[in-house]
Amino acid sequence: MKQYIYGKNTIMESLKGEKVIYQIYMAKNVNDERILFLAKKKNIKVQVVHKSILNDMVNHGVHQGVVAEVEGYDYYSLEDIIATIPSDKQPLLVMLDGLGDPHNLGAILRTCDAIGVDGVIIGKKRSVGLTPVVAKVSTGAIDHVKVAQVTNLSRTLESLKKKGFWIVGCDLNESQDYRAIDYNMPVVIVIGSEGFGISRLVKEHCDMNVVLPMVGHVTSLNASVATAVILYQVYNSRHPLK
Amino acid sequence: MKQYIYGKNTIMESLKGEKVIYQIYMAKNVNDERILFLAKKKNIKVQVVHKSILNDMVNHGVHQGVVAEVEGYDYYSLEDIIATIPSDKQPLLVMLDGLGDPHNLGAILRTCDAIGVDGVIIGKKRSVGLTPVVAKVSTGAIDHVKVAQVTNLSRTLESLKKKGFWIVGCDLNESQDYRAIDYNMPVVIVIGSEGFGISRLVKEHCDMNVVLPMVGHVTSLNASVATAVILYQVYNSRHPLK
Repeated sequence: MKQYIYGKNTIMESLKGEKVIYQIYMAKNVNDERILFLAKKKNIKVQVVHKSILNDMVNHGVHQGVVAEVEGYDYYSLEDIIATIPSDKQPLLVMLDGLGDPHNLGAILRTCDAIGVDGVIIGKKRSVGLTPVVAKVSTGAIDHVKVAQVTNLSRTLESLKKKGFWIVGCDLNESQDYRAIDYNMPVVIVIGSEGFGISRLVKEHCDMNVVLPMVGHVTSLNASVATAVILYQVYNSRHPLK
Repeated sequence: MKQYIYGKNTIMESLKGEKVIYQIYMAKNVNDERILFLAKKKNIKVQVVHKSILNDMVNHGVHQGVVAEVEGYDYYSLEDIIATIPSDKQPLLVMLDGLGDPHNLGAILRTCDAIGVDGVIIGKKRSVGLTPVVAKVSTGAIDHVKVAQVTNLSRTLESLKKKGFWIVGCDLNESQDYRAIDYNMPVVIVIGSEGFGISRLVKEHCDMNVVLPMVGHVTSLNASVATAVILYQVYNSRHPLK
């Protein structure tokens, strides 16, 4: 499967990574030297085209004059993800239950890369997958964070519990302050969908729920924002400031 | 100035607030009872129209079948914002230096409402202002968080320093871990633009710089995500878990 990715940073990150890039399309006048240099080094053809062709390729996404045709994004199996977690590291997985907005998924992958999440689990249905928009928003993190797509989220949690993971849901019900937990254990952080939160069956598998303190008028935060605040708490709890 | 806002949650929040709503337009079949109930209570006319009219009103934004014509968003003067900070509260302001993406501004306003930021300062040039997209993404926080638009950001910081504020920039240069600072003082958190960070003149006015630990491949986080992680740290530093 081929896909188009676009935007200067996204393509630079791809050029630095392992991903197969078939061809790069660049608008006249763009002449990005960093991209041209790396493309030449990796023997990737750069074709100069009119801007309108790029517009059509990426459905009027903000391509900044550069589009690349790349190998489609691969999913990992959950088994592979778990097998490759270094033995001296406390495992950390993120499960996204029905997340629908590609901007949120892209921003979450960026945060997951930043704090060293071992893998992200999404469902096959009712969820946004790995698309060019996600790639763009992730500014290349999509090439570094392993994503598994599973058929049944609650059954996946069952099997993770048997492997010793603790399941922490971000949910108001019977919840405690997100700072009250010591995350120094194998953890799956479960984030619900933008509109409806965590689904019932998945909720039943959460060992504990956490919530962010909120003192204002709105009742929830943006999904990628809430995920980041919690993930940094996990990071901080495992790497206290000396 | 009149503006259109759209989306069920955004309009519900507006109906609960003080904002003047001139009229609501609802698509056939939508019949949202909560909105109809509050509109009736507040004597606001609800007109049933075809979906295509709503599409045109909001330039094909995701309106979920409801659009409201409201009073335009007002900016506050910085003096008013500071004058209304309760005397028993440590002041907290956020300055956005050249933020361009309305989704980021909307998500940041949502976080600012959640942790009780006293006001947000944006520049008049090269910055996204308060638009219907920002309103939608903020899920109503735009009605609760005070925003000041100023001509000169660095001069504004100068005057805030004279009033006793400490200026904390989110910038890599000569920075320390964001957890190393005790935010129990009057603080302005300065966030740079998505592409270029904090501008040179503004940087010169920062008393200290903070950075988030990042252990992966990408070199920065989404702007609204980074802002949220830092703002929650400010909140936590002022409201430690008992």
